[in-house]
Amino acid sequence: MTPMRGFTEAEYQARLDKAQSLMAQHGLTAIMLTTEPDIRYFTGFLTRFWESPTRPWFLIIPASGKPIAVFPSIGAHLIGQSWIDDIRTWQSPDYEDDGISLLATTLCEIVPKGAEIGVPSGIETHLRMPIDHWDMLKRQTIGRHFGSDKGVLHNLRLIKSQAEIAKISHACSIANRAFARVGEIAHKGAPLSDVFRKFQMLCLDEGADWVPYLAGAAAHDGYSDVISPASDTPLKSRDILMLDTGLIWDGYFCDFDRNFAVGPPNADIADHYKKLIEVTQYAFESAKPGICFADLFHIMNKALGGGDKAAEAGRLGHGLGMQLTEGPSIIPADKTLLQEGVVLTLEPSIQLPNGKLLVHEENIVITRTGAAFLSSPAAPELTILK
Amino acid sequence: MTPMRGFTEAEYQARLDKAQSLMAQHGLTAIMLTTEPDIRYFTGFLTRFWESPTRPWFLIIPASGKPIAVFPSIGAHLIGQSWIDDIRTWQSPDYEDDGISLLATTLCEIVPKGAEIGVPSGIETHLRMPIDHWDMLKRQTIGRHFGSDKGVLHNLRLIKSQAEIAKISHACSIANRAFARVGEIAHKGAPLSDVFRKFQMLCLDEGADWVPYLAGAAAHDGYSDVISPASDTPLKSRDILMLDTGLIWDGYFCDFDRNFAVGPPNADIADHYKKLIEVTQYAFESAKPGICFADLFHIMNKALGGGDKAAEAGRLGHGLGMQLTEGPSIIPADKTLLQEGVVLTLEPSIQLPNGKLLVHEENIVITRTGAAFLSSPAAPELTILK
Repeated sequence: MTPMRGFTEAEYQARLDKAQSLMAQHGLTAIMLTTEPDIRYFTGFLTRFWESPTRPWFLIIPASGKPIAVFPSIGAHLIGQSWIDDIRTWQSPDYEDDGISLLATTLCEIVPKGAEIGVPSGIETHLRMPIDHWDMLKRQTIGRHFGSDKGVLHNLRLIKSQAEIAKISHACSIANRAFARVGEIAHKGAPLSDVFRKFQMLCLDEGADWVPYLAGAAAHDGYSDVISPASDTPLKSRDILMLDTGLIWDGYFCDFDRNFAVGPPNADIADHYKKLIEVTQYAFESAKPGICFADLFHIMNKALGGGDKAAEAGRLGHGLGMQLTEGPSIIPADKTLLQEGVVLTLEPSIQLPNGKLLVHEENIVITRTGAAFLSSPAAPELTILK
Repeated sequence: MTPMRGFTEAEYQARLDKAQSLMAQHGLTAIMLTTEPDIRYFTGFLTRFWESPTRPWFLIIPASGKPIAVFPSIGAHLIGQSWIDDIRTWQSPDYEDDGISLLATTLCEIVPKGAEIGVPSGIETHLRMPIDHWDMLKRQTIGRHFGSDKGVLHNLRLIKSQAEIAKISHACSIANRAFARVGEIAHKGAPLSDVFRKFQMLCLDEGADWVPYLAGAAAHDGYSDVISPASDTPLKSRDILMLDTGLIWDGYFCDFDRNFAVGPPNADIADHYKKLIEVTQYAFESAKPGICFADLFHIMNKALGGGDKAAEAGRLGHGLGMQLTEGPSIIPADKTLLQEGVVLTLEPSIQLPNGKLLVHEENIVITRTGAAFLSSPAAPELTILK
């Protein structure tokens, strides 16, 4: 069943309440946001227009009351349809003052001198505005201090609501159906670039809003990396084809892969693949509130026969939601506890004796007592293409 | 004819030579780059993996010699296939030190104390790394000064080579063919969301590598904005359907739109549309080396009967290339001269008496004596759908 698009106002209010409660704990008078997912989280402002780097967008979370949007006028109509009331616009691009004085005035209005403004500034974040403008903003808000958001955004976004999980689950079901149809488009002799193009068409045909991410590879002895664009090389007998997609439905991602064999695979590759599926299943069965991301790393790494270090990928899974990848990471250093509502990928990889890779990935959600699959878990035998 | 994928090493060398010549003029000992297009410009590092915000990527352009990549190890194999020789990697994500000490060591090795490191920091730029890490980097490079890149990246990327123009032109030809097939997917009763989904499939079917951008709208009396996602509302008689796509071929974008009428349109809408096409043609005929972006603004704005201010969109076109939109902007403040090799969009818009919009967009390249269309210019009559 297709979930409702958007969220209720009650959901946005609940997110805001939690944010303001955390802000109070950390002594933050305001939080300033500049990136697409952070701004969308509090407003529902969903547009592909972020693809253009030209215009900055700012959202301020005050200590109490609704967020304040300081937006280019081109976004006024769309944000005007959201639950946000206080919308301040300027005509962007403006080479003299691209929203900075409007932003500074707004911040000075709600943040008294001596108080602190939080900005997401840890790992996986960036400030989406020119450095020159950042310096200008600091000069125009004398007396206010910009510091870290103390992880407020990360901690809020880590726990997904039922409505968010339904959207991720829907994205996963679209990808499941597209993967089930790979036999229609991939076969011996088909150029990998064609397979990539047509797989994106399958994702759209099955209901994706758009397909921001597709990676993959094909080789008979494992893949050299998992981030290269597709070449025009035709699929050959015994190739292992891997497709890894992050498609979007209503602003939420899935992120998982599937491996296929072109004709019967080499026996050792089939064995390694089976091992990956077993390890994934084992990690899934272990996943529950109370253990941490590092535990998941060690569970998978040990089952894979690895040492203390992860393979080249550097991690064996990660958070997932409004972005293709979100923290936390499944690495030894990540002590974040699994909690109900955390959505993550399990992504074990095997480095073969020849240095090449095999990777498998599933999406799961942590429940009250364990975990549930969002992607339909793959069988331990490779799907064989003609 | 499909152009070659990638670029010759001679082209990268030429880009580097120009960069180092400009750096010498501006007294920059190095430039530090952190974003996808800037890094790809000097390396050819093309991957959709940037969709993941987890890992930072750094490229250093020294005063002489080839660029140095400071990359997460997951990118080592792909960058290893480029012309870059000096590749330094770390396993990311690393919560203690996510490449910062490696980056700082590298910078200190090539930049003596007292010297200046340029970072793109003006309009349309951002620093793709956490602020915390930026502060850490400054502490670990004591004696070196980070400042603006003095517009070096902007000025280099502004002038496209013949090989770059061929790729943009190829992206445009794919979109031309997709737009010519809109009648197959859009008709009275079709939900706009379906049209969006199927139009992306047409773009892929015609050869797009992927479709990072699609916006549009449908209404009988002009559209309310040009950035909203598609609703499920079915197309109605007399609706004007606008589709604006930015698709990619080999890392280069097109960015133009087409308007369609569902059945015969209202006469006044048809007149306004015809006016947009005439204004575009007039601007095209005026475009040549020696005039500036502001001149193009005034030429179009005057022909549209406007005053000194642009409509809500804030500009009437912009640069185009490795990004959907690039500077300069067609606004009164932009005095950048048109030069041979500049690729831009002409994007006049009309604000109707009811406050709604009509927009038209074409892509052109400036030649030695004038301009050439990269998109196939639209006819002055709206294409009518069934």
